[in-house]
Amino acid sequence: MNFKFTKWHGCGNDFVIINGLEENIETIQPQAAAICNRNFGIGADGVITVCPSENADFCMRIFNSDGSEAEMCGNGIRCFARYVYEAKLTTKSEMTIETKAGIMKPKIIASGDDVLVTVNMGNPVLQADKVPVAGFADKTIISEEIIVDNENFHITCVSMGNPHCIIFVDDINAVDINKWGPVLEKHQIFPNKTNVEFVQVLNRSKLRMRVWERGAAITLACGTGACATLVAGVLNNLCDRQASLQLDGGLLSIEWNESDNNVYMTGPATKVFEGKYSG
Amino acid sequence: MNFKFTKWHGCGNDFVIINGLEENIETIQPQAAAICNRNFGIGADGVITVCPSENADFCMRIFNSDGSEAEMCGNGIRCFARYVYEAKLTTKSEMTIETKAGIMKPKIIASGDDVLVTVNMGNPVLQADKVPVAGFADKTIISEEIIVDNENFHITCVSMGNPHCIIFVDDINAVDINKWGPVLEKHQIFPNKTNVEFVQVLNRSKLRMRVWERGAAITLACGTGACATLVAGVLNNLCDRQASLQLDGGLLSIEWNESDNNVYMTGPATKVFEGKYSG
Repeated sequence: MNFKFTKWHGCGNDFVIINGLEENIETIQPQAAAICNRNFGIGADGVITVCPSENADFCMRIFNSDGSEAEMCGNGIRCFARYVYEAKLTTKSEMTIETKAGIMKPKIIASGDDVLVTVNMGNPVLQADKVPVAGFADKTIISEEIIVDNENFHITCVSMGNPHCIIFVDDINAVDINKWGPVLEKHQIFPNKTNVEFVQVLNRSKLRMRVWERGAAITLACGTGACATLVAGVLNNLCDRQASLQLDGGLLSIEWNESDNNVYMTGPATKVFEGKYSG
Repeated sequence: MNFKFTKWHGCGNDFVIINGLEENIETIQPQAAAICNRNFGIGADGVITVCPSENADFCMRIFNSDGSEAEMCGNGIRCFARYVYEAKLTTKSEMTIETKAGIMKPKIIASGDDVLVTVNMGNPVLQADKVPVAGFADKTIISEEIIVDNENFHITCVSMGNPHCIIFVDDINAVDINKWGPVLEKHQIFPNKTNVEFVQVLNRSKLRMRVWERGAAITLACGTGACATLVAGVLNNLCDRQASLQLDGGLLSIEWNESDNNVYMTGPATKVFEGKYSG
């Protein structure tokens, strides 16, 4: 297997991007797990392929490090958008990208010396039975108290296509996330399990967030988690509708737009190196 | 920082190799930790630079993922040798390489369809006070019983420049290495701590070995550990002076030569990709 690729990351969430307009991705995609292996392969959280689309400027496919295909990824699509723009596959700074979660419209913007990408992440889902959270019917779960192993947590639950349980704390460094993350993830009130975000409010426009990802562990960044956190902050009247979130892997700016109810995520997409695989 | 590199691995122990005859490594070497970062950088266990030498064909420098400089690395030098040969920096299949542990003489050999590299890893050190193991003076530690947390272990201790404690077991899969590795590593009889190898004898010419590396964890492969294990197997009359060792990351062939007392390690060196870093 021989192919050219580019390695990118968005807040430390890293991807091998392969141009399917030039490379034979039919043979490459089934090898995603081997490509993502960090010792024997290139090493990445996922493989992203750039494909043609009949309904949009491009189609993005994204494969996890276990080889399974993902519907969408907020950090990944920022890298995708900046890649196709800088590789001159398009001259549009606002483009349409077909994904398994629908057509997305990322927009490349200049911000001082930086180049950032904004993505419309859609409407937040607040009804408990749709997040889903069991036992609350269509109620919105805002700062609801639950007791786990004799510890009290005030949870706010938001879905951004996947479930999030947000917990505001006084001191993020005092939380044992490796202990409480997996316990809350698998709590009986979450029929599909949940991602868990611990958040410290620094001020109304700046939050510090750490995330326990469902089925994974503490990760450097979670795009949908950052969106869900901003929404939870607004619901609890702890922050404005636009705020920056400091994640372990970098900074994301999130806006929950009042007029269209969409959540917009703006963040970096960083190219690390170009490569030619010959494994 | 912009530079070309090649990514290699030896039994899963992976390296970014940079040609210091072409690239300005003075600025690159201090960035080894950033380069090794698996999310934000290229990702590797170490950075190896190819340098000129007045005393040998080349000089190899190797930097760990924490940025510190290592003296030598058995898996790394195999990659180094095959790299300089395939990049046509030399036409010699047996070359001299200056390292901080002395001048090494790796030899590239064909083995069927494979290309392997043999490295003379030097004499094993068996005297307890030189391994070092405390409380046994200059005795050789062969199948000595120690009791740790009410569990009996029979240890054999060998230094290959770094200390190893080898334990032969009936079933490698039945050993909880994450539990016993760190306990044995820090046992009071090892003043400099120790690497710990658990080994199942499959037959007199085939051993299965797993390693707990000092200061690290379970790793895919440890070259000096494989050498120490073969020596320990001979001392216990469990294997021949030449045997193959199946590590988690691949196969190494080890010979403890009777006439010169040196240990020769033969194993693979695999190129994964070429890259151009622009981070």
